Amino acid sequence: MNRIVTISREFGSGGREIGKRLADTLNLAYYDKEIITEISKETGLSEEYIDNISEKGIYPIAFNFGRSFASFGGIQSAQTEILVKQQEILTKIAEKGNCIIVGRGADVILKDYNTMNIFVYSDMKSKIKRCKIKAKEDEKLDEKELEKQIIQIDKNRKKFYNLISNFEWGNKNNYNLCINTSGLEIKDIILPLTQYIETWFRRKE
Amino acid sequence: MNRIVTISREFGSGGREIGKRLADTLNLAYYDKEIITEISKETGLSEEYIDNISEKGIYPIAFNFGRSFASFGGIQSAQTEILVKQQEILTKIAEKGNCIIVGRGADVILKDYNTMNIFVYSDMKSKIKRCKIKAKEDEKLDEKELEKQIIQIDKNRKKFYNLISNFEWGNKNNYNLCINTSGLEIKDIILPLTQYIETWFRRKE
Repeated sequence: MNRIVTISREFGSGGREIGKRLADTLNLAYYDKEIITEISKETGLSEEYIDNISEKGIYPIAFNFGRSFASFGGIQSAQTEILVKQQEILTKIAEKGNCIIVGRGADVILKDYNTMNIFVYSDMKSKIKRCKIKAKEDEKLDEKELEKQIIQIDKNRKKFYNLISNFEWGNKNNYNLCINTSGLEIKDIILPLTQYIETWFRRKE
Repeated sequence: MNRIVTISREFGSGGREIGKRLADTLNLAYYDKEIITEISKETGLSEEYIDNISEKGIYPIAFNFGRSFASFGGIQSAQTEILVKQQEILTKIAEKGNCIIVGRGADVILKDYNTMNIFVYSDMKSKIKRCKIKAKEDEKLDEKELEKQIIQIDKNRKKFYNLISNFEWGNKNNYNLCINTSGLEIKDIILPLTQYIETWFRRKE
């Protein structure tokens, strides 16, 4: 069976960076935005729309997407189509080879693939710091506003997760390892993590 | 500041074994039962009684302990004395040098010592398997009964934790790393864990 690591993460916790760096170090395929691109290709909906509806929880009435909204018979139909496509695409990815998948409920959708599931989280101070570092220089970020946004995005991720799962997003029991990145530099923890992952896949069940 | 790793753990998850092995590998002092022995010395209460009252949540009326129960003015007084002594002893340990402490709410009591806090947990199948391996050969363990005991012990740990903390026992936000040992051999994960811990203590805050 292929070695598949799924990474779920709180916004601003550095989960995506962990995924990318792990994929580089372990020489694994990496999937994140690629999944949205693929859904977009197959449904005709714009990437922005899919991202908004599937992870950000934004349900715009008048939104700029490729295909006519009416042809879906409403938001719920569009959401269902996205979920179905997402499942198809994740399954294809899982069959293809060893990989790391960030977000998209891959831990739940691929539950029969014996995936190693990681959850990445951190305290608000670290999240704000990370968001500020990533922001463009000319972007003025108000900390209070940023905090509100961070909380809202995670609420939406939780909501989206609930659509596809009976488990609670972020509940440690659903993951094999939960990493609190507060105060840490992501690059520093990659080496021990790669070793932990390799050990995990060598285990006898 | 001394490097202090605290390990909280679900019963049967292998947390104690992780603590011992990490201490050996990292060449750190290890505290677990030693804390009870010390409380016993200083209070005159038997080790068994302290263990029962402080972690197992058993509050016996007629129990075999060193000092007369009446001299405490009841269970609550005994519990308070144990908690006070525990705090004193843990603080002494933290001042002494680098170490690993298993259980006893050390993560909360030593919150000003910049400890690295680990939570170890696993699924019920793995817990039962571990308990069976550890049981004496002549001990007959009924799985249903064992499961009940495991659940009860963790409930008591949670209860005890609530006495000293506003945090929820086992809530990932209170820990720096949460390790799900389901299906894993503890000895296999020690090397990556020691490296993760060393990285953690080298971080810049």
